[in-house]
Amino acid sequence: QQYRAQSTENESRKLDRVYKRHDYFPDRHIGPNESDISEMLSFIGAESLEGLIEQTVPSSIRIQKPLDLDKPMCEPEIISRLQEIAGQNQLWRSYIGMGYYNCWVPTTIQRNILENPGWTTQYTPYQPEIAQGRLQNLLNYQTMVADMTGLDIANSSLLDEGTAAAEAMTLCGRHTKRMKFFVDRKCHPQTVAIVQTRARPLGIEVEIVDRDQADFSRGDIAGVLFQYPDTDGNIDDYHDLVEAAHSHGALAVCATDLLALTLIKSPGDIGVDIAVGNSQRFGVPLGYGGPHAAFFAVRDKLKRQIPGRLVGVTRDVQNKPAYRLALQTREQHIRRDKATSNICTAQALLANMSAMYAVYHGPEKLKHIATRVHNATHILAEGIKRTDHTIETGEFFFDTLKIRCAGDRNEVIQRAAEKMINFRLYEDGTVGVSMDETVEEKDLNDLLEIFGCKTTAADIADSFPGDKPPGSITETRHSRTTPYLQHPVFNTYHSETSIVRFMKILENKDLSLAHSMIPLGSCTMKLNSTTQMMPLSWPKFCSLHPFIPLNQAEGYKVLLEELEHDLCEITGYDNICFQPNSGAQGEYTGLMVIMAYLASKGEGHRKVCLIPMSAHGTNPASASLAGMTVKPIKVLANGSIDFEDLKRQVEAHKDDLAATMITYPSTNGIFEEGIRDMCQLVHDSGGQVYVDGANMNAQVGICRPGDYGGDVSHLNLHKTFCIPHGGGGPGMGPIGVKKHLAPFFPTNPVTPPQSTIEPGAAPLGPISAAPWGSTSILPISWAYLKMMGLQGLRVASEVAILNANYMMKRLEGPYKILYKGHKGFIAHEFIVDTREFKQMCGVEAADIAKRLQDFGFHAPTMSWPVTNTLMVEPTESEDKAELDRFCDAMLYIREEIDEIVDGRISLEQSPLKNAPHSQSIVMANHWPWPYTREQAAFPMPFVRPESKFWPSVGRIDDVYGDQNLVTSCPPMEAYE
Amino acid sequence: QQYRAQSTENESRKLDRVYKRHDYFPDRHIGPNESDISEMLSFIGAESLEGLIEQTVPSSIRIQKPLDLDKPMCEPEIISRLQEIAGQNQLWRSYIGMGYYNCWVPTTIQRNILENPGWTTQYTPYQPEIAQGRLQNLLNYQTMVADMTGLDIANSSLLDEGTAAAEAMTLCGRHTKRMKFFVDRKCHPQTVAIVQTRARPLGIEVEIVDRDQADFSRGDIAGVLFQYPDTDGNIDDYHDLVEAAHSHGALAVCATDLLALTLIKSPGDIGVDIAVGNSQRFGVPLGYGGPHAAFFAVRDKLKRQIPGRLVGVTRDVQNKPAYRLALQTREQHIRRDKATSNICTAQALLANMSAMYAVYHGPEKLKHIATRVHNATHILAEGIKRTDHTIETGEFFFDTLKIRCAGDRNEVIQRAAEKMINFRLYEDGTVGVSMDETVEEKDLNDLLEIFGCKTTAADIADSFPGDKPPGSITETRHSRTTPYLQHPVFNTYHSETSIVRFMKILENKDLSLAHSMIPLGSCTMKLNSTTQMMPLSWPKFCSLHPFIPLNQAEGYKVLLEELEHDLCEITGYDNICFQPNSGAQGEYTGLMVIMAYLASKGEGHRKVCLIPMSAHGTNPASASLAGMTVKPIKVLANGSIDFEDLKRQVEAHKDDLAATMITYPSTNGIFEEGIRDMCQLVHDSGGQVYVDGANMNAQVGICRPGDYGGDVSHLNLHKTFCIPHGGGGPGMGPIGVKKHLAPFFPTNPVTPPQSTIEPGAAPLGPISAAPWGSTSILPISWAYLKMMGLQGLRVASEVAILNANYMMKRLEGPYKILYKGHKGFIAHEFIVDTREFKQMCGVEAADIAKRLQDFGFHAPTMSWPVTNTLMVEPTESEDKAELDRFCDAMLYIREEIDEIVDGRISLEQSPLKNAPHSQSIVMANHWPWPYTREQAAFPMPFVRPESKFWPSVGRIDDVYGDQNLVTSCPPMEAYE
Ligand SMILES: Cc1ncc(COP(=O)(O)O)c(C=O)c1O
Ligand SMILES: Cc1ncc(COP(=O)(O)O)c(C=O)c1O
Ligand SMILES: O=C([O-])O
Repeated sequence: QQYRAQSTENESRKLDRVYKRHDYFPDRHIGPNESDISEMLSFIGAESLEGLIEQTVPSSIRIQKPLDLDKPMCEPEIISRLQEIAGQNQLWRSYIGMGYYNCWVPTTIQRNILENPGWTTQYTPYQPEIAQGRLQNLLNYQTMVADMTGLDIANSSLLDEGTAAAEAMTLCGRHTKRMKFFVDRKCHPQTVAIVQTRARPLGIEVEIVDRDQADFSRGDIAGVLFQYPDTDGNIDDYHDLVEAAHSHGALAVCATDLLALTLIKSPGDIGVDIAVGNSQRFGVPLGYGGPHAAFFAVRDKLKRQIPGRLVGVTRDVQNKPAYRLALQTREQHIRRDKATSNICTAQALLANMSAMYAVYHGPEKLKHIATRVHNATHILAEGIKRTDHTIETGEFFFDTLKIRCAGDRNEVIQRAAEKMINFRLYEDGTVGVSMDETVEEKDLNDLLEIFGCKTTAADIADSFPGDKPPGSITETRHSRTTPYLQHPVFNTYHSETSIVRFMKILENKDLSLAHSMIPLGSCTMKLNSTTQMMPLSWPKFCSLHPFIPLNQAEGYKVLLEELEHDLCEITGYDNICFQPNSGAQGEYTGLMVIMAYLASKGEGHRKVCLIPMSAHGTNPASASLAGMTVKPIKVLANGSIDFEDLKRQVEAHKDDLAATMITYPSTNGIFEEGIRDMCQLVHDSGGQVYVDGANMNAQVGICRPGDYGGDVSHLNLHKTFCIPHGGGGPGMGPIGVKKHLAPFFPTNPVTPPQSTIEPGAAPLGPISAAPWGSTSILPISWAYLKMMGLQGLRVASEVAILNANYMMKRLEGPYKILYKGHKGFIAHEFIVDTREFKQMCGVEAADIAKRLQDFGFHAPTMSWPVTNTLMVEPTESEDKAELDRFCDAMLYIREEIDEIVDGRISLEQSPLKNAPHSQSIVMANHWPWPYTREQAAFPMPFVRPESKFWPSVGRIDDVYGDQNLVTSCPPMEAYE
Repeated sequence: QQYRAQSTENESRKLDRVYKRHDYFPDRHIGPNESDISEMLSFIGAESLEGLIEQTVPSSIRIQKPLDLDKPMCEPEIISRLQEIAGQNQLWRSYIGMGYYNCWVPTTIQRNILENPGWTTQYTPYQPEIAQGRLQNLLNYQTMVADMTGLDIANSSLLDEGTAAAEAMTLCGRHTKRMKFFVDRKCHPQTVAIVQTRARPLGIEVEIVDRDQADFSRGDIAGVLFQYPDTDGNIDDYHDLVEAAHSHGALAVCATDLLALTLIKSPGDIGVDIAVGNSQRFGVPLGYGGPHAAFFAVRDKLKRQIPGRLVGVTRDVQNKPAYRLALQTREQHIRRDKATSNICTAQALLANMSAMYAVYHGPEKLKHIATRVHNATHILAEGIKRTDHTIETGEFFFDTLKIRCAGDRNEVIQRAAEKMINFRLYEDGTVGVSMDETVEEKDLNDLLEIFGCKTTAADIADSFPGDKPPGSITETRHSRTTPYLQHPVFNTYHSETSIVRFMKILENKDLSLAHSMIPLGSCTMKLNSTTQMMPLSWPKFCSLHPFIPLNQAEGYKVLLEELEHDLCEITGYDNICFQPNSGAQGEYTGLMVIMAYLASKGEGHRKVCLIPMSAHGTNPASASLAGMTVKPIKVLANGSIDFEDLKRQVEAHKDDLAATMITYPSTNGIFEEGIRDMCQLVHDSGGQVYVDGANMNAQVGICRPGDYGGDVSHLNLHKTFCIPHGGGGPGMGPIGVKKHLAPFFPTNPVTPPQSTIEPGAAPLGPISAAPWGSTSILPISWAYLKMMGLQGLRVASEVAILNANYMMKRLEGPYKILYKGHKGFIAHEFIVDTREFKQMCGVEAADIAKRLQDFGFHAPTMSWPVTNTLMVEPTESEDKAELDRFCDAMLYIREEIDEIVDGRISLEQSPLKNAPHSQSIVMANHWPWPYTREQAAFPMPFVRPESKFWPSVGRIDDVYGDQNLVTSCPPMEAYE
């Protein structure tokens, strides 16, 4: 019996048997081998993988005919194919700007962070004791942003500058309780469009203004957004604008540029309340649009309104300083539709890279880089002044010039094209040129030549009176006066030797998939294979500007089309939109598309969104952002949606029902039998069905949301489709839709995707800044699908389900399993119900989670979807040995619980309450506990001194941190 | 005052000031910043870096005019330039074979080992407690080799197959005390030639024989070497040959192929005593010749004769199994000119990759790969049989066919060239084709087409009666019958998830430059920068076969020429030979070149080599291998060469003096004043001067061996020139010579370097298997030189000297400094004299070394060049903070010594004797020592629980291991 796919797909010909390949990728991706699989099957009482699926997934929804997917490619084949595809992209020099700038990623950061599974495969730092490395560095990120913007508090990343600006708008609305918002005309066009898109469903009125004519006097303006420097490169005085806003109770928001801020006055200095922007040019590749980390900084008074994750300093049980995510009560997993934002997965990995770039360079080198960029702009400006062209950007600029060509613009464009150079091409006939860190003398000379300037950069420099260009911004009233990045962390690690060690110390504090399983329910922490990750380092994938002409990105076009085809096959949808760069963004986009569709049918009044109580917090938050009214649906004692309640609600809202959001299999880990009927019911009442795709890992190759009734789903590519979590991002949340919804896909004002300009299209405005979101990580998912093939994908889902059932059966008994399907099996995850321990002996799920750290394990998802429980999702990539170690640890802990229950040890004195045991606890001279140091640190034989992963601090005090909020690097003395 | 170079070289033009670069690489390479440097200078009482050099390096040898080196290039520039150079290499498909085969390097191994500084920057595991990871994996390597060859003991790598064969020959000679050696004609030609070269100076007579006609009957044959399968692809019966050898007291040696051995009888099964070969095709890139790990396996009776490093199992102080280098008394640092071999730096990193490849695949996948390769060969053979060509290889083969073309061979070659395909072109007009793991169906079809076969691979397969080719070697008497790789380590980590974790666990046990300084005197553990390392992953550097036509390697030609030019400038020599792939190989080559030169002048009788007692053990070992008679020279109490003794010896040997080997600055860390005079003296007596270049890091840009009297030097590119040590290799030891020696440079029988075939050349035979040694790591050194530029290189040397002097002054007082220059300064390293502690209180250098591990430091070089001392070399890459931490640790330890001296603690109870303190010691329930656990593990504030690097075992028992020699993986129970 062949449990595993074993490349049989490729063996139809005799050659394929005589000359059988040895490198079938599913053998590497799937953890358990054949004999593991038989053992586990017999342990759970299933005959075969197929048999297990029959008992788990309702037959009414199982797919009947094989999907149309390519035969699997092996790793060497996928690398060559990807190289071919990359070869179809063209790498021109781009001076397009608009918030995206080429930069030099320090190779040591690229290799030791971006290319290192120790950094890329971490999860969001919700278990702070085993995540101090990235928390510390995200604090560096926040400190850097706060310093550069001159504001008090920065978060640790949002998805892109455009959505950050939209978040600022909603913050202004919440803070002022006003519904009008000014946007300066000279913001980047994609930012303007995103703000407009986001405002509409919320009923916020956006007015595009000329900043010097903005009139706040009616007192109904929530805030004003301007770009600083503006999209045409100008640096102006904003004091008047900001003062006007403030004097009428409005907030001032600027979208800004970290590199420019090393030379020009900080937003804080000019009085703004909120600053947003993209930190991409701090050491993150362009990526044809992403991923990069957007920042968001505010004045202290707004801190409880800040969206997204915020790292704060607190203390551990020994009173040592420690880091953890602060103020979580703002977030959607607590506040649901009342949350400050729907953002969940953000851009942690890229924020880490940008922070490390600042650590590596420090304030002086950053200023040096900025000066170089600025001086290059002056040299170009001087050269252009010597021609007949006109510079429309004013006297004060940083890196960008807007140029009106004297003669035919096309001649300039043509000369540029000959040198493979891209400019920004304004609709008003002008040309934009933005300089960046990578521009060298030869580039400058090419630019001068293109603009018909007869001199060289060297000659122009010679004509300057001193060693600075005349008019340098640093000699004007705009020059920055306040210091930045004074903290030692930005002034210590400037040699490569020292920064390598710094990165290594941080890496080694953080548990990742390179250490052990991370069985987080609903997060699908599976293998992120090296072969899938490699293209991320190839310039022809990672160094493309998002707004280049489409014919320079033919490779990406092929890749996107193939990925769309495969994801459609897998989901049963007709079209995919790649713009949303996280699951929550996907939800928002999907719901917006539904609303647009309904409106197009004249049913714009349908606004109710039904969401089960067990749903992920982003669901209600996204619905609310999409302008919908959220109504909860009850969940039965067995965890399923209460069909009766659903019926009642549908009936009650039959006139205003817009959609129902369903997670399938449910967040409780069950394939509900009634799914088809539920979808039918909603459709019959005129509503649309949104199936949350977070749990696709149980379905690929087995059943399809598009078949059983979904109209739209997002796919968290960072779960089922192998994009690594990066410690809290990046991710991608494309949506799949039935074809009636496709015409409403969001567009992009600069580079509209083809489908959005075709006849019949009625696109939404953009919901992300880049046309295809974080495009450069899409090859990861593409490669996964192509290497797995149809059979590999199906077996992966089956093994994911097998692994979960195996663990469930091993734990059942000693632990209560909260929900099971009616045949006694579960899907790819299950909930361990730890609630009774609380009253039996005071032990809570959190104690078990912390104690698991002593075994070198990351806890399962805690208290979601049910408070005080643990949700376990092993994925198919974990082998039986690892599942067994985890179960052994859980069973050992169960005995420790019994010791308390039996009164053999008190709760306070138990290893459970003292967990995790850091080195400084275990090695302290004084040992006050009734159990031994060895039991604390090495409770089982597989936890061995020479290979143990240690929590780097003891249990963290959350409350203290929120009461004494510190969100930037504390002075060094704090550590002594 | 500008202490650091700060890109001033680039600022001659105004543009370079207005538009100053920010990415001057020396700022990243050199640890201390300007203010550190001033502080350190004032601490040691020097005015400036120049002033320090004046007081350190004799003025008589300091260079007077700047070297002719290019301006420094920045990191982005070097990457583009290297890409350009790589672009000049052509990547053809090569079926050349001859011991080198393309393979698929599993991307996870490439990324997590080869591209990971945690693995590449380790030193040779002489401090086993902080090197258990690579020791464990090198034991896997030994186990794998022993299993595959069917022999008892394998070492953990030699440099290449050719030198391994030569080592086997000398072993046979030592063992049998006979001076004749048979080599089968059907060995790879480079192997034959190396054996011949090596034999000559030792007076061993090599006879090339047809193996079936070898006549051992005179009883004077030491051994016989044959290739299995032979160079033409044949697999024969060797029982008769082996028996004939044995019955006349000769040993049987085979050069073999690990992949073939998965299918055919093991060397052990056919009775051989020694097996050698290249493990390259087990997951190591071709590298245009290297680096890869050669293996060497013997029967138990020969174990004390085995050359090179051997990992053995022993126990630590707690009786836990632990690994360390075994039987070191065989090696040259103990036995000097009587050593079993001169090998020192080997190929540890590549052995680690090959071992991991076997761990990743396991026995079944390896057999699968081999079967695939074999079947491909059969398909090709069948195709060729359908043409008029003749296969000269016999009935039994594995992967190689020798083909006599029916018509004009050139037509076949021409068709191959059109498809960019290389074959082996025999001198006898035939063509050789060797298959490998990367061959795919399309490749097979191309080959069939080239040979004019009208059918496709698929058609041929269809014509086979079953799913195996008829005549498959596995169906013959040659088929392997004994099992291999049964140990769990080869049967556990087959999913990518599990092998990533396995590699991470091993990595984290080993201290590397990614953790802290490794201040090993004479080893120059400096920064190996990422940018320098990147080209190693580029196919156009790493995937070239060493024997391709030269016009396919134009890029390498440029690179080698530029590197030769720069190294000549730096050393003052006229030519460089890149063939030696380690320092010791360079010594051997240099001395052989001297002997050839002398012989060419009719002075072949000159054989004496004078070597100071303080010399590195490889010096006498190499001299002895070169057939020289080693005479020691005394060293004065101040560490300098005893000039009077030198004079006496030169006088005594004036008629037979061949050479003197001098290390400069001396291994004691002193620039001896009399160097010019010493060299003059040797020259005046007709001798040549060999300057050991290991200490170039004190000289680059300051003085040149070629100027002060050297005729030849090797350069350890893995020290001064930034190739990482890889945990004991790879390295490169090219030699620089004055022009009179250049005609004698070694050649290569397959691809002779241009200079060796020019008129006037009188080349030595090859001393390494590949024409330019481990070619693919040369871009590292090239990039270093190009990024540093003249000034950067000089400042690096100055700071290396400053750092050493700073540490010396900080330690002086509490510690005795053994030698200083007459002005009180030292060169780039110094010896801490710890001898007096022995009698004061019993503490030895080893105790200090072990105690340093508790602080997270690697010990300095121990007991060399003076027993019971520590030699410290910080290099320029360490910043002041790190130097201070190390000195603080040393001073703290000095106080711990005083406690013993003062009787406050006994020697046995002191942390010094108990060091290192592993986790299992510190966390044991029972703590028997008078000092605290915290003092044991966290003796100073900078040693913190959250960032400490831990020794993974306690102090290791060396004697036990040598008495109970175990050199392959012990059964798992040993660990329980
Ligand atoms: C069920 C479910 N829906 C939606 C999301 C939101 O996805 P993202 O974090 O990518 O925004 C998650 C994330 O964990 C989830 O588990
Ligand atoms: C002074 C000296 N000479 C020669 C060598 C031998 O070089 P290798 O190890 O590269 O063979 C060394 C190695 O450390 C050395 O220190
Ligand atoms: O290996 C060394 O002796 O440096």
